[in-house]
Amino acid sequence: MKIGIVGGTGHIGQGLACRLSHNHEIILGSREKDKASEAGECIINALNEKGIKSKCTGATNQEAVDEGDIVVLSVNYKYLKATLEPLKGFEDKIVISPINPIGKGDYFYYDPPKEGSAALAVKSLLPKSAKVVSAFNNISANKWKHIDEELNYSVAVCSDDEDAKKQVMNLVNEVSKLKAIDAGPLAMSSVVESITPLIFNIAKYNDMKDVGVKFI
Amino acid sequence: MKIGIVGGTGHIGQGLACRLSHNHEIILGSREKDKASEAGECIINALNEKGIKSKCTGATNQEAVDEGDIVVLSVNYKYLKATLEPLKGFEDKIVISPINPIGKGDYFYYDPPKEGSAALAVKSLLPKSAKVVSAFNNISANKWKHIDEELNYSVAVCSDDEDAKKQVMNLVNEVSKLKAIDAGPLAMSSVVESITPLIFNIAKYNDMKDVGVKFI
Repeated sequence: MKIGIVGGTGHIGQGLACRLSHNHEIILGSREKDKASEAGECIINALNEKGIKSKCTGATNQEAVDEGDIVVLSVNYKYLKATLEPLKGFEDKIVISPINPIGKGDYFYYDPPKEGSAALAVKSLLPKSAKVVSAFNNISANKWKHIDEELNYSVAVCSDDEDAKKQVMNLVNEVSKLKAIDAGPLAMSSVVESITPLIFNIAKYNDMKDVGVKFI
Repeated sequence: MKIGIVGGTGHIGQGLACRLSHNHEIILGSREKDKASEAGECIINALNEKGIKSKCTGATNQEAVDEGDIVVLSVNYKYLKATLEPLKGFEDKIVISPINPIGKGDYFYYDPPKEGSAALAVKSLLPKSAKVVSAFNNISANKWKHIDEELNYSVAVCSDDEDAKKQVMNLVNEVSKLKAIDAGPLAMSSVVESITPLIFNIAKYNDMKDVGVKFI
């Protein structure tokens, strides 16, 4: 499968590329194609050193959308609208939102847009035929990067498109020991996104590192 | 320690009484004292059969407030205001809210009051000196009842009063294998409460039973 990552040079984007590029062809998008190409080479070399063959090409964000069967929006919520505005071609694509709108004062808090969640905002910004799925929201950026590190967490997946949800759940289950959990319609993404500032606070107040979540 | 449970004949109330009455004196409150006395005897007998001595007295809700060092509000959110209205004497007490305001359409959803969460609504209804702590929000009612069943979950605890939070965390850690987690100020209780409809949906959509949560 071809997976396009918009904002692919960010932590989550590179992390996903590391974890998926031995099974899938990754198109790592960026506003600056050179930066993406560099990041892609880095990933290929790092995996190569461990004897893992991978396919990860640097591209523009538009190319990541055009070529991906699945498109991941690895974008900070602050830049979501500006990033999506110039991009076209999302029709009928599966679009994954791992985005969490988070505010910070004395503690981290959930700061959702008027649509109710980042995933619902994504849905409102894309053509109607795009199949928006929220996933990978509650996994620490640090954990993605270290490919030797086991990811033993639940990944709550939300979507209004059952087939797209299933495809993304299959993708989730390919990564380390992640376990995809059907968390219902896209409207539930607000709860899943809000768990991220909660686990940031839990890490801070309990002297824990890279807290994740398991539904058992 | 004396623990008063307002609405003590409900699932969570009886469950808590079962799990705590061998270490603490439970004052099981109800609008109908007879019902509470019956429930209290049931709990004592059930524990007795397992060779566990316990102390659990039926009482009115007002007596549960008056006598408890810690008061648990084991009340459905719908009845919270009506239950609290006639009760007095919450000054300086530690008050635990395990309450989750949940709505149900095609799926379960979080339905918070204008204060932002049930715990914040409790705070607004009680005297200023009451120390409101949210805890025990994400544990299935079914799990409480079967005393032989291990409870191996995280319990996120929120409060603006650090000392009260610590006392409640100690109480949590006494129950089975529950692990208390400091989840920050009471404002974070909205996220913790909202996890309950999420796990209800997860149970439904993934054919799981009595889903709980662990922060790891």
